Amino acid sequence: MAETVKNLRQRRTLPVEVWVVEDGRGEPVPDELAVEEALEIRLKSNDETQPLAVTMRTPGADEELAIGFLYGEGVIRDPKDLVSVDQSPPPPGGQMGNRVEVELKTGLTPDLAPLERHFYTTSACGLCGKASLDALLLGRRPQLPSGPILAPELLYDLPAKLSAAQGIFQTTGGLHAAGLFDSLGHLLAVREDVGRHNAVDKVVGWALGEGLLPLHDHVLLVSGRASYEILQKCLMAEVPIVCAVSAPSSLAVSLAREHGITLAAFLRDRRFNIYSAGHRLGMETTPTPGAD
Amino acid sequence: MAETVKNLRQRRTLPVEVWVVEDGRGEPVPDELAVEEALEIRLKSNDETQPLAVTMRTPGADEELAIGFLYGEGVIRDPKDLVSVDQSPPPPGGQMGNRVEVELKTGLTPDLAPLERHFYTTSACGLCGKASLDALLLGRRPQLPSGPILAPELLYDLPAKLSAAQGIFQTTGGLHAAGLFDSLGHLLAVREDVGRHNAVDKVVGWALGEGLLPLHDHVLLVSGRASYEILQKCLMAEVPIVCAVSAPSSLAVSLAREHGITLAAFLRDRRFNIYSAGHRLGMETTPTPGAD
Repeated sequence: MAETVKNLRQRRTLPVEVWVVEDGRGEPVPDELAVEEALEIRLKSNDETQPLAVTMRTPGADEELAIGFLYGEGVIRDPKDLVSVDQSPPPPGGQMGNRVEVELKTGLTPDLAPLERHFYTTSACGLCGKASLDALLLGRRPQLPSGPILAPELLYDLPAKLSAAQGIFQTTGGLHAAGLFDSLGHLLAVREDVGRHNAVDKVVGWALGEGLLPLHDHVLLVSGRASYEILQKCLMAEVPIVCAVSAPSSLAVSLAREHGITLAAFLRDRRFNIYSAGHRLGMETTPTPGAD
Repeated sequence: MAETVKNLRQRRTLPVEVWVVEDGRGEPVPDELAVEEALEIRLKSNDETQPLAVTMRTPGADEELAIGFLYGEGVIRDPKDLVSVDQSPPPPGGQMGNRVEVELKTGLTPDLAPLERHFYTTSACGLCGKASLDALLLGRRPQLPSGPILAPELLYDLPAKLSAAQGIFQTTGGLHAAGLFDSLGHLLAVREDVGRHNAVDKVVGWALGEGLLPLHDHVLLVSGRASYEILQKCLMAEVPIVCAVSAPSSLAVSLAREHGITLAAFLRDRRFNIYSAGHRLGMETTPTPGAD
């Protein structure tokens, strides 16, 4: 039993080496990330199989996730509606399969038509797989500059500057914010939204209108967590330094490392962790993935 | 200028009357909610217009949101790629239009094919409009029971019970959690995920497997904010009492009120706010929408 719990845990967190920066000095420390991976939910009904949704999720309880999702969409109403729920085998080097196929009982033909729309896969809202980013980047690979180089202390004040400019959060307590800063730490724009991805889109849209793209000399700060989708948007806008007040996901860190984005998270109380490309914050070493 | 800022603000927050509960006693207090509404982004290219995405957002800077989204998806690279960005007029009684149409310059034919997938509109991940819920409910209207009736103090301990059962957050600081409780406040199941909607789906999927649905005698608690999608999932599972540690959105409150779900949020430090159907927590009056 203890072994099972340990295995489950290993699938849901990923060990990494981060640089913890306090008082302007950094040192490497082992840490753990929440795992974020794409899961595709497929529906088999009357001998026909179709992809229904892709969601970015933390592996574990994936069959529950699939049937809970289908229940929430009104596709199933009862355990008897299910013939089988099968998870694909883990990919090479992976820990859990990233596809769950749900087979409905014969004769159950859910009316999906009213719900159907055509969407384009996007990281916005988490509806994406890694493949979609590859598709996005086809023919163009963002080239991030090696700079700017910032004093680590400059980052300490950014959350307070963002909060001071955030009108709605203080009233409602209910909004995410994204702020764009120049390399001197001046706040250029702040946007708020119930969706953190929307807040980043609004900032990038503002920057496009101002003729500022690509954002090679800028820092972007999000008020919450840094997920894959946030890093994708920053990569497309070529932001070299991305900061988050809360935790990053495993896929956010992996995207930042792959493309050389400096990712600093848990930025609060005059400290932060660096997950990648620490050279832009004057750290000698870029953290490398920890051994499993 | 001050007038403009005020108007903008009115569009992004909504006044409501909530019941603030402390020491087991409640009183009505005016408050404000962060507004959540669907925005459809449409793309006009070579005389053809097509819907591209629907996102749940806070109104304001919607044109920036649309072009920032398109930039992040690699559809546009330069302000010159845009011919026009037009927002639809506000609907009757509404404050801002909920559709933005972006026209690309002649000859610019974005290759959307690699990104295309067929999705079913879902509140999961925020990719939905109100219409999709109407479609979901077609032919079936969840009938919530009038009970259970809980002592307000019973809610105080739920966040601590959820935290104690949350393994990964304590390690990574990076996960949402959803917990299901019985009407005595006993924790039945907790699931964690980088996506809060996934955590709820996992709990509902677990409950389906246990034969517990509909969840007429249960309380569901989410560790973060309560958005429209969370309330949709709870409505489909017929959970009468939904609690959140952080803020609810305007659309979450409106859905809860429409269907008689008891919604309690900001549940922490032995206090909470009630937004709808207070009778299940022994409050004499159900809050009503405040005057604008």
